[in-house]
Amino acid sequence: MSAVNDAADDLHREAARLDAEALGAELHALVRELYPICRSITGEGLRRSLRVLQRTAPIQLHEVPSGTQVFDWVVPREWTFRSARLRGPGGELIADADRLNLHVLNYSAPFRGKVRLEELQQHLHSLPEKPALVPYRTSYYKEAWGFCVSEEQRRRLAPGDYEVDIDTTLADGSLTYGELVIPGAQPEEVLISTHCCHPSLANDNCAGMVMCAALARLFAQLRPRYTYRFLFVPGTIGAIAWLALNDKGAKRIVHGLVAACVGDAGTITYKRSRRGTAEIDRAVTHVLATSGREYEIRDFAPYGYDERQYCSPGFDLPVGSLTRTPYGEYPEYHTSADNPELVKPEKLVDTLRCYLAVFEVIEGNRAYLNLSPKCEPQLGKRGLYGSVGGHSHAAANQMAMLWVLSLSDGTHTLLDIAERSKLPFTEIRLATRALESAGLVAAQDPAQERRV
Amino acid sequence: MSAVNDAADDLHREAARLDAEALGAELHALVRELYPICRSITGEGLRRSLRVLQRTAPIQLHEVPSGTQVFDWVVPREWTFRSARLRGPGGELIADADRLNLHVLNYSAPFRGKVRLEELQQHLHSLPEKPALVPYRTSYYKEAWGFCVSEEQRRRLAPGDYEVDIDTTLADGSLTYGELVIPGAQPEEVLISTHCCHPSLANDNCAGMVMCAALARLFAQLRPRYTYRFLFVPGTIGAIAWLALNDKGAKRIVHGLVAACVGDAGTITYKRSRRGTAEIDRAVTHVLATSGREYEIRDFAPYGYDERQYCSPGFDLPVGSLTRTPYGEYPEYHTSADNPELVKPEKLVDTLRCYLAVFEVIEGNRAYLNLSPKCEPQLGKRGLYGSVGGHSHAAANQMAMLWVLSLSDGTHTLLDIAERSKLPFTEIRLATRALESAGLVAAQDPAQERRV
Amino acid sequence: MSAVNDAADDLHREAARLDAEALGAELHALVRELYPICRSITGEGLRRSLRVLQRTAPIQLHEVPSGTQVFDWVVPREWTFRSARLRGPGGELIADADRLNLHVLNYSAPFRGKVRLEELQQHLHSLPEKPALVPYRTSYYKEAWGFCVSEEQRRRLAPGDYEVDIDTTLADGSLTYGELVIPGAQPEEVLISTHCCHPSLANDNCAGMVMCAALARLFAQLRPRYTYRFLFVPGTIGAIAWLALNDKGAKRIVHGLVAACVGDAGTITYKRSRRGTAEIDRAVTHVLATSGREYEIRDFAPYGYDERQYCSPGFDLPVGSLTRTPYGEYPEYHTSADNPELVKPEKLVDTLRCYLAVFEVIEGNRAYLNLSPKCEPQLGKRGLYGSVGGHSHAAANQMAMLWVLSLSDGTHTLLDIAERSKLPFTEIRLATRALESAGLVAAQDPAQERRV
Repeated sequence: MSAVNDAADDLHREAARLDAEALGAELHALVRELYPICRSITGEGLRRSLRVLQRTAPIQLHEVPSGTQVFDWVVPREWTFRSARLRGPGGELIADADRLNLHVLNYSAPFRGKVRLEELQQHLHSLPEKPALVPYRTSYYKEAWGFCVSEEQRRRLAPGDYEVDIDTTLADGSLTYGELVIPGAQPEEVLISTHCCHPSLANDNCAGMVMCAALARLFAQLRPRYTYRFLFVPGTIGAIAWLALNDKGAKRIVHGLVAACVGDAGTITYKRSRRGTAEIDRAVTHVLATSGREYEIRDFAPYGYDERQYCSPGFDLPVGSLTRTPYGEYPEYHTSADNPELVKPEKLVDTLRCYLAVFEVIEGNRAYLNLSPKCEPQLGKRGLYGSVGGHSHAAANQMAMLWVLSLSDGTHTLLDIAERSKLPFTEIRLATRALESAGLVAAQDPAQERRV
Repeated sequence: MSAVNDAADDLHREAARLDAEALGAELHALVRELYPICRSITGEGLRRSLRVLQRTAPIQLHEVPSGTQVFDWVVPREWTFRSARLRGPGGELIADADRLNLHVLNYSAPFRGKVRLEELQQHLHSLPEKPALVPYRTSYYKEAWGFCVSEEQRRRLAPGDYEVDIDTTLADGSLTYGELVIPGAQPEEVLISTHCCHPSLANDNCAGMVMCAALARLFAQLRPRYTYRFLFVPGTIGAIAWLALNDKGAKRIVHGLVAACVGDAGTITYKRSRRGTAEIDRAVTHVLATSGREYEIRDFAPYGYDERQYCSPGFDLPVGSLTRTPYGEYPEYHTSADNPELVKPEKLVDTLRCYLAVFEVIEGNRAYLNLSPKCEPQLGKRGLYGSVGGHSHAAANQMAMLWVLSLSDGTHTLLDIAERSKLPFTEIRLATRALESAGLVAAQDPAQERRV
Repeated sequence: MSAVNDAADDLHREAARLDAEALGAELHALVRELYPICRSITGEGLRRSLRVLQRTAPIQLHEVPSGTQVFDWVVPREWTFRSARLRGPGGELIADADRLNLHVLNYSAPFRGKVRLEELQQHLHSLPEKPALVPYRTSYYKEAWGFCVSEEQRRRLAPGDYEVDIDTTLADGSLTYGELVIPGAQPEEVLISTHCCHPSLANDNCAGMVMCAALARLFAQLRPRYTYRFLFVPGTIGAIAWLALNDKGAKRIVHGLVAACVGDAGTITYKRSRRGTAEIDRAVTHVLATSGREYEIRDFAPYGYDERQYCSPGFDLPVGSLTRTPYGEYPEYHTSADNPELVKPEKLVDTLRCYLAVFEVIEGNRAYLNLSPKCEPQLGKRGLYGSVGGHSHAAANQMAMLWVLSLSDGTHTLLDIAERSKLPFTEIRLATRALESAGLVAAQDPAQERRV
């Protein structure tokens, strides 16, 4: 239909024909499969999880050796977890990571021995304000051993000797991350990054991992305008490692989203990139504002997920974060209550739909030129306008055409037009298609366009 | 009083001494005279109407021959209307355009003959949602015949044969428009454009036609700063024809307003130009905001009256539209209820006053230079300030002087100063006059000023 | 601690260790001492007042001879006041400036003689809307004699002859102003200006005079970054005289505040400079917004105190005005009710604290460079971040560090960062100090910085 090579039409079609129930069930089953695996920022649990995702999309695994300097950081020794058990004075089982892997302090050093309750207390982590829940705690960069237990359980601990058996190894190995690149017509890239280091936390972030895998599978069937890069990285150190290893290549990223916490029942929330008004910021804002969903938009802050690294001033990439309830704001966050029950199949699909709608905007956002810019062209003789006049209002699709004609002067992209007209991007895009077919507008020369 | 040649003082004086009652009565009588004439985008009704307005102001008539290519459009054949009658199976008169010219589909092709009710229905237009009213419908660019009737009447039509007698002609001729140019000190132009193609619709737009004629009469007595161009054009095709015939000259238009629906009792409404922040947009906004009237300001949209053409991207003229209730938003719009009763004499005058106040701003808006810019000049020794000090607040006219002195630094026009001080433009202008008389400020060199 | 020479740390420490009760008592005693002195824009009362302030800070007195042309103004003859009494027909004392110096029209010409009530009325000033209060009135530039009395007293005046004895002199002399310059590391200046011409009006402006003297005393112990210039000038003519005599030097002023009405119980109010977005405007706004105080911010208007002169377009200095209740807005303003009771010791200190906090911002506001801009530096290994991860939120001081790292890219000063992060400037400044100590950020080269 159009001479322009983009996947906006395809994405629109894919979103329309998507079987929400089947997809939701499939993704939720994957969440449940990933949930019990004891992941960390390195190690076999991480590798095993990425291999589960490879069944959905052809993700490639990369290994970065321990000791590799990545900017200000060093890839740590690899953590191998086998088991972690804590027994009470009477031999009773207090905590067993096989039952819930949050019980072991993530990256815990190995330890075996008896300790008195007083000493044990120094190695226990609990949540006084949420006494029934087991917290998620880590100690990646300071060697320590420990257990996470509920405050209720902790309070019941009797004096005496406790038997600690943490069977882990910290040794040279590597950090693993997954990557999938879908080549597009242009070398400029869209980054979709998700963290995959959290152990038994379902929404944060088994949900993000499976949604990104499903997106990657869908893109693998398309020939998009942009090149799409999917990253499945351990949080912080993984993103830093990728950036360090791709210092120059990162410049090709022109739009990006960090995906996390995408399956809970909370409100869709977008956190702007550090730039604040990048095209990705405007695209997400427009999609949410015209989608009928409740949503929230927040300014960038240098805390959160890996947008911290992508947006660091030395890179300052236009990468925002599209989640449901943001990190730290749902009561189950980083506790044993973030389990597969918290993740809803229909919410996984709803969030995925948002991502598709955003990519439809990104793919389809070009500047067109009105080829008949002096006065309105006569739409009626081209069958684009009713022949009987005098009605109070133009039909919606006619309004979209009039807006496209009015603003296609070489300084407005379709997203600009959608924003100004307050019409959904898709309506503007389809009106442009109709005008293009009638020879009334033409996509601007890409060389020109980049200067818009 | 001032070396500057503008008509701001004159306009202020004219507005002050205007006899609202007499003018309202005169304009309303003209509305009633124009109302029954069967106008269209071409033809004798249009010419007759413009000749009625010539009694008020020396408007010149121009003819553009049928078949003339005007950008993407072609001037259509001229429509001659003589009579249109529809009789029922029993010979009874169903619709007669002599009684209400909305009954004939505007631009209806001639037709004489008997048609069965079923066929007739294809040629009838009515308003199911406003069953008592006759709609206004047109078919300029697709040859068709038809009648407009009330839904109530339509529902009562009995089966049988109906006698149609539409005595019209569609033949080569011309499109007529009226134009009046009041030369000013500068070649830059102010455009006032109004559509004059609608038949028996009083507010839309007999009201606009007579108000513009009255404005033109008033300007004809002045020697303004800008050149004022009044256009009385058939909607859409008339504006397009004028722009096509004046493609280069249109560039001289630096401010413009499209006048329509100026006589109903609704709220004064301004629709911004496509540029959105042009001087005309700011001038109207300021006048309305400081006038004490209820008002509404709306963003540009590419639908409405002839601002659609003036603001098309190939021209992008700074032309807004100042109306009362906007098109399509009053229940009588484009129906038989838009009759002279809907137009109020005092509202016609009130709208005209708004236009005068806007033109006072446009005429008087210049940048001045404070000739004593370091510290305040001593106003007291020039009689511009009370001699006894210690009062809590400066008098209003002193505040206006202080504002003018403070901001007359070569980067602010009087409108800038009025906006920032939130004082009415007239107060700022009169304070400037007083300071100019005292030698404290001087109008900036126009060559400089245009760069402001 | 830091290589940068500024006094932000010192000001923060001085504010913290300030003995509010002792300072409040000291300043209020000074207000009471200054209150009865009959000041004017010239004369011995003004000199005596400045000498009182010299006990607090080493203010230098300057004399500008009568007749000196200062821009559009001329320094007037010096006013010497000895006594002013008005006696009634029965010899009773009606008004005696020794009891309240507001009773004499400030700058009154000498007059001795009997006048009938009718004539006397031309020379009386009262406040019908505040009948119990004696107003403050002046006649600096038009020779006149007169008395100010309460409306109540005026209404009781019986017909008859009144004995006027105004013992004043208007003769060549000089205008006096006080000045104290605290040299800083940079020649760029911060101006603190206060008017000292008002007679018995405690809040307006004995309060401003003593607060500025206390600020000057404090700065005299510091070695600030900027040069601080304190001016104690008679209103309007004093500021104009200083500007005329320092026409070129005034360009060195890069931040300034006019202090007045600083002791009443009303809300702290900041009036922006004419520029509106100068660093001083932003600094005061930020300090007030993060201080927990109620406050008000107002746009510049060319009326008020000496910001009128400093902000006149020929200078346009970035000078705002930080007061409590602004001029003219408290009922006691310019009346006998503006007495030492109206001034509260704790409010004097509270306002002074605001000034100190503003100067902390001004002194400490520099641009730093993140020396590790690609990804976050590892704060944990430097002891700047907790070692156990997984918590919901970063601690406040960690957030401040993350913000400083994120925005220290050469285009943001610490005030920019404080504004964007909505964290108090002091937190941002202290986080920067910590990062600087760790070698993670460095102050930008000042030559570069001025271009920021």
